[in-house]
Amino acid sequence: MNGRTQAWFNREGLALLTDFYEITMMAGYWKEGRTGQRVSFDYFFRSLPPHAGFAVTAGLESFLDYLEHLRFEEDDIEYLRSLKMFDEAFLAFLGAFRPAFDVNAIQEGSLVFPFEPVVQLEGTIFETQLVETALLNLINYQTLIATKAARVCQAANGEPVMEFGLRRAHGPDGGLSGSRAAYIGGCTSTSNVLAGKAYGIPVAGTHAHSWVMSFGSELEAFRAFARQYPERCVLLVDTYDTVKSGLPNAIQVFKEMRERGVNIRPAIRLDSGDLAKLSKIAYRMMTEAGLENPIIVGSNDLDEDLIADMKRQGAKLNAWGVGTHLITAYDAPALNGVYKLVAVWDGQAWQPRMKTTSNIEKATDPGRKQLVRYYDAEGNPLCDIMYLAEEQYQERGGIEGRLRAQPHVKIRKTGAMKAEPLLQPVFRNGRRVSARQDIHALRERARTSIAALPDEYKRLRNPEIYQVLLSNQIGELKDAMLSNPDGA
Amino acid sequence: MNGRTQAWFNREGLALLTDFYEITMMAGYWKEGRTGQRVSFDYFFRSLPPHAGFAVTAGLESFLDYLEHLRFEEDDIEYLRSLKMFDEAFLAFLGAFRPAFDVNAIQEGSLVFPFEPVVQLEGTIFETQLVETALLNLINYQTLIATKAARVCQAANGEPVMEFGLRRAHGPDGGLSGSRAAYIGGCTSTSNVLAGKAYGIPVAGTHAHSWVMSFGSELEAFRAFARQYPERCVLLVDTYDTVKSGLPNAIQVFKEMRERGVNIRPAIRLDSGDLAKLSKIAYRMMTEAGLENPIIVGSNDLDEDLIADMKRQGAKLNAWGVGTHLITAYDAPALNGVYKLVAVWDGQAWQPRMKTTSNIEKATDPGRKQLVRYYDAEGNPLCDIMYLAEEQYQERGGIEGRLRAQPHVKIRKTGAMKAEPLLQPVFRNGRRVSARQDIHALRERARTSIAALPDEYKRLRNPEIYQVLLSNQIGELKDAMLSNPDGA
Repeated sequence: MNGRTQAWFNREGLALLTDFYEITMMAGYWKEGRTGQRVSFDYFFRSLPPHAGFAVTAGLESFLDYLEHLRFEEDDIEYLRSLKMFDEAFLAFLGAFRPAFDVNAIQEGSLVFPFEPVVQLEGTIFETQLVETALLNLINYQTLIATKAARVCQAANGEPVMEFGLRRAHGPDGGLSGSRAAYIGGCTSTSNVLAGKAYGIPVAGTHAHSWVMSFGSELEAFRAFARQYPERCVLLVDTYDTVKSGLPNAIQVFKEMRERGVNIRPAIRLDSGDLAKLSKIAYRMMTEAGLENPIIVGSNDLDEDLIADMKRQGAKLNAWGVGTHLITAYDAPALNGVYKLVAVWDGQAWQPRMKTTSNIEKATDPGRKQLVRYYDAEGNPLCDIMYLAEEQYQERGGIEGRLRAQPHVKIRKTGAMKAEPLLQPVFRNGRRVSARQDIHALRERARTSIAALPDEYKRLRNPEIYQVLLSNQIGELKDAMLSNPDGA
Repeated sequence: MNGRTQAWFNREGLALLTDFYEITMMAGYWKEGRTGQRVSFDYFFRSLPPHAGFAVTAGLESFLDYLEHLRFEEDDIEYLRSLKMFDEAFLAFLGAFRPAFDVNAIQEGSLVFPFEPVVQLEGTIFETQLVETALLNLINYQTLIATKAARVCQAANGEPVMEFGLRRAHGPDGGLSGSRAAYIGGCTSTSNVLAGKAYGIPVAGTHAHSWVMSFGSELEAFRAFARQYPERCVLLVDTYDTVKSGLPNAIQVFKEMRERGVNIRPAIRLDSGDLAKLSKIAYRMMTEAGLENPIIVGSNDLDEDLIADMKRQGAKLNAWGVGTHLITAYDAPALNGVYKLVAVWDGQAWQPRMKTTSNIEKATDPGRKQLVRYYDAEGNPLCDIMYLAEEQYQERGGIEGRLRAQPHVKIRKTGAMKAEPLLQPVFRNGRRVSARQDIHALRERARTSIAALPDEYKRLRNPEIYQVLLSNQIGELKDAMLSNPDGA
């Protein structure tokens, strides 16, 4: 691979991809002689995208790529020097900086819920603060898109969903990261060739209106396309008039090919007009012409709601191209993930920290944690419990936890169950310790996880809320800290 | 600058940043022996973002950077070969490909309106088709964000707006491109250090909640910050309790500094709670403590509507940090820009092309064009008219045009006026012919253009629609083509 593309794929050269206040704070810690203070941060999000009952986590591998290439180059230092705010000694310290932290994380493609620690960083305050913005940037966006893709694929009900978003994505990397996340979330392919090359995602796509318009006639354009690509011939039939021109021309071309002995599955794409109605007309016209079992691709501002509603109306579409609404998560284009200090090492022990607010629901959960998912006898997720990292989690049988916003309230769950700790080491002392994950395996993890999730959490509207509890120890700690917040 | 960061800034290595169907079509044109056919494409968008009366165009320089580095590297070819769809001869042709097209464009920072050709490409169908996706990706997003920024800055009414969006941007480059566009649209600074380095945008930011939480107490944290950064000390007062703890501690620290003879302008940031109410309380507490003329920065899910509404309520905020809603254009996170074939060279002359649809408003405007803006005697924009490129545009005095959707209807404008052709050459025969634009000059162009635009187009809600007309020649051509669409 050439160096230019590699820089994009590997997230190289991004040491300055950070909010300025991170640098300001780092320089402050350095001047205060506190750069070595060990702290622990949690990444979590406070609410799911609208109407979602779960999120599919994504972006971890991109964050690890960034970490593995994280160093300040001479020109980065030069730029910071030009701001005339930082000591030379601090700049030298930055130049020599190499990350040495530990990272635990929930694997990509897993289902996650509000307030769960998805990524944890432990290290000096200097290094953990530096990477906050890049972590939020990479994981917020990819989790948002993987989650949106999962919803779109649920609506499509097993039919292929092609991600077509690059032209409306937020910059080149909005497309690249977004295609990756959409594939993890369940899409079958992308139109983005660079994402295909970078991540090994299958690429898909046929022709545009301009192909048709550049020929003397639509029929001539279709014939040329079918001649070139008999094996993946999907004809776009709406350049002029779908019913009067596009469909009759497409039917004629498919019949001509069959007459010449080409064994071709008839396939068309509808990209404008009422897709549900036109798909029924197309299906009827094609089957009446002897073209059985046609593939009818729909595209044009689709999202999960529109797909579900068209299916309810008996649309004959059976493959889906989804662009703008998927790649931007149009109805809510940001996940509200945050990165909060949860503990400080005082030399002897980890001291939990909590950000209080007037809204108890938004108060953070103190301490370094393990997150455990409990499954029932059928292997379906039952609830999650956050434990302190040093706490022994409950393995099976009756378990007990506390409500996050009312940590004095105990909740008990009984029956046979299996426990799975979700946070696993991925970085130790600045080096990667987990194997690089294959994107197809991540997608498969998402698929099987969603399949195992009970239906009540998977409704596209008003799903049940999956229960995330605190362990008794965290619950008691939080209860005590809420009664006596710092800040005196 | 090191090669790694350069690849991001220069948009290098992105030849495959394209929809797969562009490659499929290119291979098709190549096999049909039609790669040399000359065509002309327009980039335009069909509607403004919600409630907007104008758009600020941005992204052109990024597109030109991409064009200047556009070539297929050996590993790109290798990837395409692995798909087993393309002839070796075609792949060799791709490897040898160098762009040779002409590009005309409206300069970044200009105000543009629906259906106006913002970028025009003229060249072989092969090369003009290849770059479609990257053009749409780069210009749709940056125009969207520059436009959103202009609205936010209008609401802030001259007070500084800092762009804080990186953590919610769509990937690293969503942040990088978005910061650039936000600055062009009127923001005063960005928190994104990489964007500061790449584009020379002023960077801003102070400290986070974690700074406060990592110290033994809020007061200690504030004292340390003020000690380190007396010249840019903005204290974040809402980590624990804004009124009972944050404000009293901040006031104490500012008074201590003044007592030590530091000439400091008191400045705080509010990031949660009711910003309007808290800003009034903060203003009163600070001025009563002798801290006159405080800077009170508001941040937390702000957008133009919330800023305008808080101002209406007399909020004492006077500087604004805007993140999520700006960098994602939250209420409508995609601009619907498209790239349409408008003419084909038949060997003797340009033959206009038009995509018809059942909705005449959405039909494209045929032919290669010049766009002319007319100004009244005071220099305020009056209307725009699209002409055929070869047509002599009306220079002054009474002008006449046609409605886009009813091209037989004539519209006349009288009075003194000045004409400005907006489309200018930027690429000729694959090489850049326009000077690289300084980002501060682009921002200034946007500022003065918005200032000159009459108020009726600048309302944040329900603005007047700015008139974009067709010349008589395009109008007659379109009328004729609508009566007799191709597609037989």
